[in-house]
Amino acid sequence: MTEKRLGPQTIRLPSAPSILGIGTVSGRKEYLGPIGKYVDVDADQTKLNLSSWEAEERSMLQRAINTVLTKTKMLESNIDYMLMGDLLNQIVTSSYTARENAIPFIGLYGACSTMALSLSVASMLIDGGFATNVIAATGSHFCTAERQYRYPLEMGVQRTASSQWTATGSAALVLSEHRQGLPSITHVTTGRVVDFGITDANNMGAAMAPAAISTLRAHFDETNRAPEYYDLILTGDLGMYGKSIVADELCDEFNEFSSRYTDCGCELFKGDTSVLAGGSGCGCSALYMGKVIKDFELGNVKRVLFVATGALHNPVLINQKESIPGIAHAVAIERE
Amino acid sequence: MTEKRLGPQTIRLPSAPSILGIGTVSGRKEYLGPIGKYVDVDADQTKLNLSSWEAEERSMLQRAINTVLTKTKMLESNIDYMLMGDLLNQIVTSSYTARENAIPFIGLYGACSTMALSLSVASMLIDGGFATNVIAATGSHFCTAERQYRYPLEMGVQRTASSQWTATGSAALVLSEHRQGLPSITHVTTGRVVDFGITDANNMGAAMAPAAISTLRAHFDETNRAPEYYDLILTGDLGMYGKSIVADELCDEFNEFSSRYTDCGCELFKGDTSVLAGGSGCGCSALYMGKVIKDFELGNVKRVLFVATGALHNPVLINQKESIPGIAHAVAIERE
Repeated sequence: MTEKRLGPQTIRLPSAPSILGIGTVSGRKEYLGPIGKYVDVDADQTKLNLSSWEAEERSMLQRAINTVLTKTKMLESNIDYMLMGDLLNQIVTSSYTARENAIPFIGLYGACSTMALSLSVASMLIDGGFATNVIAATGSHFCTAERQYRYPLEMGVQRTASSQWTATGSAALVLSEHRQGLPSITHVTTGRVVDFGITDANNMGAAMAPAAISTLRAHFDETNRAPEYYDLILTGDLGMYGKSIVADELCDEFNEFSSRYTDCGCELFKGDTSVLAGGSGCGCSALYMGKVIKDFELGNVKRVLFVATGALHNPVLINQKESIPGIAHAVAIERE
Repeated sequence: MTEKRLGPQTIRLPSAPSILGIGTVSGRKEYLGPIGKYVDVDADQTKLNLSSWEAEERSMLQRAINTVLTKTKMLESNIDYMLMGDLLNQIVTSSYTARENAIPFIGLYGACSTMALSLSVASMLIDGGFATNVIAATGSHFCTAERQYRYPLEMGVQRTASSQWTATGSAALVLSEHRQGLPSITHVTTGRVVDFGITDANNMGAAMAPAAISTLRAHFDETNRAPEYYDLILTGDLGMYGKSIVADELCDEFNEFSSRYTDCGCELFKGDTSVLAGGSGCGCSALYMGKVIKDFELGNVKRVLFVATGALHNPVLINQKESIPGIAHAVAIERE
């Protein structure tokens, strides 16, 4: 075991790479919700009249990148790697966006866990001495996700109560070498794939909750930290049913878990019942990071455990009667 | 710039993580070809009568992993990370295979460049001090790729002369801390996404060749190495048309390029005209690594530059008249 490795799933980052800034772009529904005030660009106000939803999704990701470069006063040439992934087949949103940027590109796939996965690998590349500045970015779009994973929107299929609403939005973060006073990544717990046999593609929360539980347990165990160490423990997009599975399971095991814990999918559209069980998609936890970073700035939080969750299925395997495996990756974000 | 960073795309790995071993599984067509004698498992001889081609693809990847664990005398619990990706939507081959293994999983997407991408990130995780042993693995299957990217096989669509044949096979490598006498990864050149406007999804070689040229130039420039430094320079799956674009472009620029250079796609099925322009797919360069590792063992080569290439499109974007971006990632493999 190396000195950076705390256990089978967790490493610590002695140099604690910092989050220099975040750029976010959201759709109208997200902008009008509780996280709207933390969003940099309201995509609805900057409509480009693009020819497809896929093009819109790419445009949002590119604008999130441009926004964070401007906010952090970085040039493309300052960025050593760009780590991105998304929900579309062959992560085309990320790859086609990367084509517009002369930055070495590492494509990732972690479904809705991509924000934590890209932050994990980005912070390891910096701590390992391979990079000074890295972009970690992701996004999703309600309309592209619906037609790819479910039904054409034009069919107007009725949604089940456990279904979730894919967030339309993108976030890009610049990670850099440690700077005093900025939120910094101190630990990474990489998820194992966990499958509890859920076959209902309209109940992603239940499919992903066991993975979140597995990663949270591994993190607390291997870091020797209790939930009360953190001001906030965030899962990515479990929605209300998935969140209640995690809460039920871990509240008995850990004191003070429930008082710290919430789920980005439950927060993103809070009060909007049209989304049913809550928000989802790569963009869900990514957009919510805008609020988290602002809370660090304001001193509202000092230690956050961010556990983004992903369902790793595709429609072909669902048709072949396979169950839905989940994964959850955790990063501990702390500020002195 | 850090001490490990040689230029905008290239890093060196001072600790030179070693390739402990490789496990390969191939389909019958690959097994009967020139690389058959380097393949560990002939999938055709171990048919499991699985219910789908997708299940067969997963089974091949799992068997490649089991084979390399056995060959390197490793247990699952010795492996710190598993880095995998494949061609199927949402890299389900990798994710569903990872579900069978209790190893932290980092999903990657680099299309057919995945073998080099996974080796790149794996060797950085070891050199960075985050891991002792890492599995880098990928694979592909002719039948699953055809039906996903092109047409149902049952249609019997005629293939164009520039089309390539997706290799059926998987390879898994175990990377570990440096060991004297084993092939070791000394440099990584991470690709940028390059798009020359090719829109013909049956001419992947032409779409990927500019990316290979870009990465090769960056590698030679940033490492201050000339092609003659290497005994062998390998691109991943450009096929005969893509290979000739690279050769034409770089032979003028670099002496001794052509005498060292070949393409895994041209070698995999050498002599078999039914594959038309050559082999392709994640499995193509991955299976060919079996021969490369054997050549290191036999002392036939001491320095190899492995540049796997990927086309980053999907059928939806082709239908939307988008062109096909390419990427190429390079790793320098050397043995004292």
